[in-house]
Amino acid sequence: MALINENYLKLAAGYLFPEIGRRVNAYAQAHPDKKVIRMGIGDVTRPLTPTVIKAFHEGVEEMAQAATFKGYGPELGYPFLREAIAEKAFASRGALVSPDDIFISDGSKCDTGNIQEIFGNSSKIAICDPVYPVYADTTVMSGKTGNIRENGYYDGIIYMPCTAANHFIPALPAEVPDLIFLCYPNNPTGAVATREELKLWVDYALEHRSIILFDAAYEAFIRDPEIPHSIYEIENAEKVAIEFRSLSKTAGFTGTRLAYTVIPSQLMGYDQHGNAVPVKKLWDRRHSTKFNGVSYPVQKAAAAVFTDEGQKETQAVIDYYMGNASIIKTNLKQNGYEVYGGDNAPYIWTRTPGNMKSWEFFDHLLNKANVVGTPGSGFGPAGEGYFRFSAFANRENVLEAMERIKVL
Amino acid sequence: MALINENYLKLAAGYLFPEIGRRVNAYAQAHPDKKVIRMGIGDVTRPLTPTVIKAFHEGVEEMAQAATFKGYGPELGYPFLREAIAEKAFASRGALVSPDDIFISDGSKCDTGNIQEIFGNSSKIAICDPVYPVYADTTVMSGKTGNIRENGYYDGIIYMPCTAANHFIPALPAEVPDLIFLCYPNNPTGAVATREELKLWVDYALEHRSIILFDAAYEAFIRDPEIPHSIYEIENAEKVAIEFRSLSKTAGFTGTRLAYTVIPSQLMGYDQHGNAVPVKKLWDRRHSTKFNGVSYPVQKAAAAVFTDEGQKETQAVIDYYMGNASIIKTNLKQNGYEVYGGDNAPYIWTRTPGNMKSWEFFDHLLNKANVVGTPGSGFGPAGEGYFRFSAFANRENVLEAMERIKVL
Repeated sequence: MALINENYLKLAAGYLFPEIGRRVNAYAQAHPDKKVIRMGIGDVTRPLTPTVIKAFHEGVEEMAQAATFKGYGPELGYPFLREAIAEKAFASRGALVSPDDIFISDGSKCDTGNIQEIFGNSSKIAICDPVYPVYADTTVMSGKTGNIRENGYYDGIIYMPCTAANHFIPALPAEVPDLIFLCYPNNPTGAVATREELKLWVDYALEHRSIILFDAAYEAFIRDPEIPHSIYEIENAEKVAIEFRSLSKTAGFTGTRLAYTVIPSQLMGYDQHGNAVPVKKLWDRRHSTKFNGVSYPVQKAAAAVFTDEGQKETQAVIDYYMGNASIIKTNLKQNGYEVYGGDNAPYIWTRTPGNMKSWEFFDHLLNKANVVGTPGSGFGPAGEGYFRFSAFANRENVLEAMERIKVL
Repeated sequence: MALINENYLKLAAGYLFPEIGRRVNAYAQAHPDKKVIRMGIGDVTRPLTPTVIKAFHEGVEEMAQAATFKGYGPELGYPFLREAIAEKAFASRGALVSPDDIFISDGSKCDTGNIQEIFGNSSKIAICDPVYPVYADTTVMSGKTGNIRENGYYDGIIYMPCTAANHFIPALPAEVPDLIFLCYPNNPTGAVATREELKLWVDYALEHRSIILFDAAYEAFIRDPEIPHSIYEIENAEKVAIEFRSLSKTAGFTGTRLAYTVIPSQLMGYDQHGNAVPVKKLWDRRHSTKFNGVSYPVQKAAAAVFTDEGQKETQAVIDYYMGNASIIKTNLKQNGYEVYGGDNAPYIWTRTPGNMKSWEFFDHLLNKANVVGTPGSGFGPAGEGYFRFSAFANRENVLEAMERIKVL
């Protein structure tokens, strides 16, 4: 008899974003005359830039000729891309990352979920609350938790509440976790971590032989020059941290698909006898056994992001989105909302007006203003009563959405 | 303390193909004057066809304009592709598969490995021996096995030996498995399963509520009109089988990356109390939580494979490779080799000459003829003393390799 993985049955409701999609589609179908403005899923709207498109076409053209055709590539990614990333994404900020420690993949969502496979199921995992729901959901799927409790917390996960009271920066947990998910700039709160705050975490992980899973998917949106983009800007982080990066938001790759993960050679995990095992070797084995590399033309397109011209174009698109963030933040404030984030992140985090529940405000906003945002409670119980607006939208839609919200 | 998944430590040596790569590179570096002909990894050599390239470029061009730009797509794949597959890959052969039951992914290697996540770790898995090594390796990684034994078998896996004695078609196993990996046309033996043989498996799975994981990556190479391409050509298979398909070999997508997996709505797994749970729902949840869809231009390119023109072009490339297979088979026979496969599959399976061990013959062939093949033992213990030649090569290389083998 084929037995299912019953951990899946522990999962609460559907994954957040498909649920938003379902509600929005239902509304749109019932009201075909209404123009719905979507600021919910946090998906980019600007096209790929000219330099990226040119390289993408060139990559496709290479696939058309026997002499330049590419079959299986290196499972871990082409050296030309890994070297460009090491130089432009890390060395340029003083973070020393070897190209050999960079793993190219088709998404940070995949990597932050799949990374759990190489760790033991008795590992205790700490996550912020609220945060990107994939960390908790994949922890449950992997069998590292018990059931969900009435308060929305899964047994066996160490939650670190992030609210206005602690400026959305959690305290070091009392119970020591083995794996610690951190996400800065934070999705959904838009909070960033200073050098000092990150150093606290690195020292804590060193002391306890824990591993930090650092999701830096939004680092490109940091405007404050004092805020680190990579955890490897912190001394000794290479001994305790894995970093996840993505071109999804950075360069508009949500539909093109490319991300990368850094696992430094120095990073050790432990067997039950306390023997050190290089984590990179395990991920290398996982990647070469269960993955076959990213599409070659996509890797070519990605490399173009790291050229001088590509960096300039990409920065212009980021500036555009951050202009949206500023408009949203200013308008919400003017309308009396309590607003956070949006300065170094493409997300604006607000308390719901009138103490509405998050989903209640979602439905209210959808029905009354035809604007879609993301309910804070979808990111975890401590997100209840909050709401996320995404700056990934066209300017005219942002302006229109803000007009509609004024008269709510 | 961050504990690793110790199941990874049970894995024997490296994954087969990287190991071949390492040996070949070492030889090539030591002998830069030698022209090495690679018929080992089974990678395609012919470029993408004109219709596919055209659609691929069009997909890229859509990403260049705001009006046609695509961000996140449906995690399970675009409807235009799922519908084309349902019609051209299945309905045309009398296999009724709903587009809703087709999941687009970036590779069958990923899918055949990841599928294990949705099944319980007490599941007993049956695999053929020899076979594509990913099935066993990912079974070990997922924690469904014990340690490896001296004979090369992992404790807890039900092995089904396939040798010349049983014409490479295994008997139904005495111990009943929960999950059964089948691969037809077979990698590496090139054997195919008749309608009657598949019906035996379907009936067996129905009787025992087992699930068949049917890898049909090579179905496009079947020449015999009596041999089924899909397990869904067999009555009731939709109740017991998942089918994996890939464009890697079919349409030269090894470097472009696109595959698809069918999980019929009718297929049930069971919780420990025997309650039926639709397997598709679990995979849907896995895919939408840990995966973010395949690159849009790649899906456009893939859809072009299923147009009339695309099918014609693709068939011509397959004919080319099968011409290679015929040349290899004929030449090896003429040189006294005992040869199997190659009629309905791009792989030729041969006994090693002079009772050499598989890796011994690999090194012999590499050193004396500068030809790379795949050691049969890399596919499992019963592959010892066998060797695989791949028809995925340029014609002139195939002819030259056969000349070199003549004088071995």
